[in-house]
Amino acid sequence: MGDFIATLSLPLLLSFAALCIYPSPISSLPLPRFSPSSKYAPRFLGKPSRSNYSAPTYQYDTRYFDQNLDHFSFSKLPKFRQRYLINTDYWAGPSRSAPIFFYCGNEGDIEWFASNTGFLWEIAPRFRAMVVFPEHRYYGESMPYGSQEEAYRNTSTLAYLTAEQAIADFAVLITELKRNLSAQDCPVVLFGGSYGGMLAAWMRLKYPHIAIGALAASAPILQFEDLVPPETFYDIVSDDFKRESLSCFNTIKNSWDVIESEGQKKNGLSSLSETFRFCKKLKSTGALSDWLYSAYSYLAMTDYPYPADFVMPLPGNPIKEVCRRIDNCPDGTSILQQIFEGVSVYYNYTGTVDCFDLDDDPHGMDGWNWQACTEMVMPTATSKYSMFPEYSYNYTSYEEWCLGDYHVKPRPNWITTEFGGHGFKHALKTFGSNIIFSNGLLDPWSGGSVLEDISESIVALFTKEGAHHLDLRPSTAEDPDWLVEQREAEKKIIRSWLDEYFERKRAVLDM
Amino acid sequence: MGDFIATLSLPLLLSFAALCIYPSPISSLPLPRFSPSSKYAPRFLGKPSRSNYSAPTYQYDTRYFDQNLDHFSFSKLPKFRQRYLINTDYWAGPSRSAPIFFYCGNEGDIEWFASNTGFLWEIAPRFRAMVVFPEHRYYGESMPYGSQEEAYRNTSTLAYLTAEQAIADFAVLITELKRNLSAQDCPVVLFGGSYGGMLAAWMRLKYPHIAIGALAASAPILQFEDLVPPETFYDIVSDDFKRESLSCFNTIKNSWDVIESEGQKKNGLSSLSETFRFCKKLKSTGALSDWLYSAYSYLAMTDYPYPADFVMPLPGNPIKEVCRRIDNCPDGTSILQQIFEGVSVYYNYTGTVDCFDLDDDPHGMDGWNWQACTEMVMPTATSKYSMFPEYSYNYTSYEEWCLGDYHVKPRPNWITTEFGGHGFKHALKTFGSNIIFSNGLLDPWSGGSVLEDISESIVALFTKEGAHHLDLRPSTAEDPDWLVEQREAEKKIIRSWLDEYFERKRAVLDM
Repeated sequence: MGDFIATLSLPLLLSFAALCIYPSPISSLPLPRFSPSSKYAPRFLGKPSRSNYSAPTYQYDTRYFDQNLDHFSFSKLPKFRQRYLINTDYWAGPSRSAPIFFYCGNEGDIEWFASNTGFLWEIAPRFRAMVVFPEHRYYGESMPYGSQEEAYRNTSTLAYLTAEQAIADFAVLITELKRNLSAQDCPVVLFGGSYGGMLAAWMRLKYPHIAIGALAASAPILQFEDLVPPETFYDIVSDDFKRESLSCFNTIKNSWDVIESEGQKKNGLSSLSETFRFCKKLKSTGALSDWLYSAYSYLAMTDYPYPADFVMPLPGNPIKEVCRRIDNCPDGTSILQQIFEGVSVYYNYTGTVDCFDLDDDPHGMDGWNWQACTEMVMPTATSKYSMFPEYSYNYTSYEEWCLGDYHVKPRPNWITTEFGGHGFKHALKTFGSNIIFSNGLLDPWSGGSVLEDISESIVALFTKEGAHHLDLRPSTAEDPDWLVEQREAEKKIIRSWLDEYFERKRAVLDM
Repeated sequence: MGDFIATLSLPLLLSFAALCIYPSPISSLPLPRFSPSSKYAPRFLGKPSRSNYSAPTYQYDTRYFDQNLDHFSFSKLPKFRQRYLINTDYWAGPSRSAPIFFYCGNEGDIEWFASNTGFLWEIAPRFRAMVVFPEHRYYGESMPYGSQEEAYRNTSTLAYLTAEQAIADFAVLITELKRNLSAQDCPVVLFGGSYGGMLAAWMRLKYPHIAIGALAASAPILQFEDLVPPETFYDIVSDDFKRESLSCFNTIKNSWDVIESEGQKKNGLSSLSETFRFCKKLKSTGALSDWLYSAYSYLAMTDYPYPADFVMPLPGNPIKEVCRRIDNCPDGTSILQQIFEGVSVYYNYTGTVDCFDLDDDPHGMDGWNWQACTEMVMPTATSKYSMFPEYSYNYTSYEEWCLGDYHVKPRPNWITTEFGGHGFKHALKTFGSNIIFSNGLLDPWSGGSVLEDISESIVALFTKEGAHHLDLRPSTAEDPDWLVEQREAEKKIIRSWLDEYFERKRAVLDM
């Protein structure tokens, strides 16, 4: 696995969280409730920001499966319809024990993930594999209680939105699907990116009898408790800017004080709103900070080597472009104007936006925020070496917020108890097998993932220049060699899992 | 692992269930609701039948831990107090990373299990181990909703009585206990017998980061769906009698028709009640059949080589004694009188019982019956080769009963989805490690357990002459060599797990 060298220059213990909701100009995403300085952190790339997003389309049937709402109790609860997308065009069928490629749906509409996971679609024909994309409960169309409104009504209805339940949904769906297709002997390979990558890895650990291996792309499974330092995420974001340009990094680092002092002036918020072209007047400098944190974080996650249209339409290496604009402003340009020019790469690369909306409904229920307030407690902070204002992690205020907003008390130690944490790598080495942890080191989430080989079959494949689950994206003509190599390595490993499976199967038959 | 030879003469796919409640003369156990012919099967040895039972006593502190009622959802539910027994007298402490021996409490009062698990207490000093006996939720004092009455009130309150929740309780308790004692580096070894052995094995599979190994004694983890034939349990019971005496086996086999025809006579039930010395008149022959099924099943489970007082006070090799009495009746003794003489070994070995009570409250809620009606669906039947009337397994009527009595629909495929089933051994081989499946082949539950080595570290240790988790019982002066050897083998394997753990730990420190 030595092909993708380069080690993260950060200490190996890292961490960050996923609570703050980032606005985007033409989306319906709710507004940030907290300034990043109130200790909440970036989310994953769980949903598209733009409704007119056009991604590659793949062929599939859409089906539904009745799931138990609580797999681990027998409370009288209504079943819910889980949506899944399925394609059997390339599948060689049960007689050939042909594989099933199963994407662990994460926090968003499954069609969007299906469109953005070209890798799986592209390799399926070669493996003669069935393709299944199940949707995560409480997202997209897979709503308990009949509708999103009902599912998100209150703590009681949201109670069953947990990772363990989602993984159990997958286990039940695979079992029933195989039974119906007489495909019990067909090996299942799991795929997932980001939170979905965490689900894939965890599922491989908890249900080894159901799936023979997992490709867990950009899966920060170590970002809990004190497993990695809370500064990790924003340190990596900052490093991504610093590597492009030290002056760019410094401009951003100096901008926060300027924003604060501007905001305290008489008419300061109006002036800031004008500089940053908001459609409505800012209510606080915090909202502007969130808007900027969001841009920098997403830029780091999607710092892809070629133009892409994942969260936003962006040029290749967008951070380079942001810094070029910041650095190349004419002498005398104000620091705020420089920042605006920079983030416009993120918010307005197409140049079609006249003014930016900050949706500020603070009461919109959001699935990921619920998850962050229950199990997915991923501590976040910024260090003095970053380009952000320094703040430390404060669990008490985190808990207070969750109690206030969701009337729920987080269980910050649960994920490590359920899935492993301290000494986890040690346990993985002895007990788990067949997991690829793939990462791109520009991705701020990479710091909380697994970046070293754990054993012969639990391996880390990372690229120095890659970003958030770049390997899962459709291939393009502009793919750099290191990306092509990473994907080739993944295919080779998946092939070896299947070969091993068939060999064992033959050995059993020969007995 | 070749020391304990002898292979079960049955096909390796076996099975049976645990629904029928067996009466005993002076206990408060509820009456059987079904004759065995209505397809329900024996329970484990979950509780002592006699309130005046005196078992060895060991020293421990009794403590309580607040547990979440649903670990896998965030429903607003009251916490409950889980009782656990703890002894640190022999423990060499965290500075020596001394081990923690953790018994997975099963379906009964934990003090009773602590008294009957002498093996663990006897080996703890030699390993300088802490001893912990946590109680299973919904049993003993560990009652949700404050009392047994409330906990067992209805389907909603019983909903959280599941194996996964119980295992999660153990995981959380271990984690918190270690944290409080700064004992994070202390390796945990799991122990369990019967259903508790299943919990130990499953926990080792699902939480390998929490426990380094498990001794699963008499754990029928394969007794689900069609993994083993449903006739297995009663076939083994029958074989236990046949091996002692073919005429004894035949007398029992012939007795059922006699009971039925006697019951259909005028005053037949009175006459049967008299023959079998019931305090009150029998309401049906089914109740008598249950009483006999219960005796034969428990005799097979506790067919220990020396006198013991586990479920009932019994002589050594009690089935031999039952058959001696049946076979040695004077010529002309009626078949019913022969049967009565035989089962009196089980119900009245001390000779102090004047008449036998059949408690017939059909509405007593019982924890194990609830579990059998939800997850623990273990199909049972009898074959024509057995000494029982032939009947086949009928899931439909099983489900109807559960709907009628508990208003709950079983999930008969859930356990195999969650913990593995078909192809489970295959999965175990590649992914699990450090589990001992110990069995005695006289035990009717052994047929649903693992009786072959799965890998180098998942091993089967069985004895031809042993019965239900005999190895976990306190040692006695009468222990036969094969039992001493089985326990020595277990100790050696546990020592090897610990050695391996410390070696890895040293290797990490040396790095």
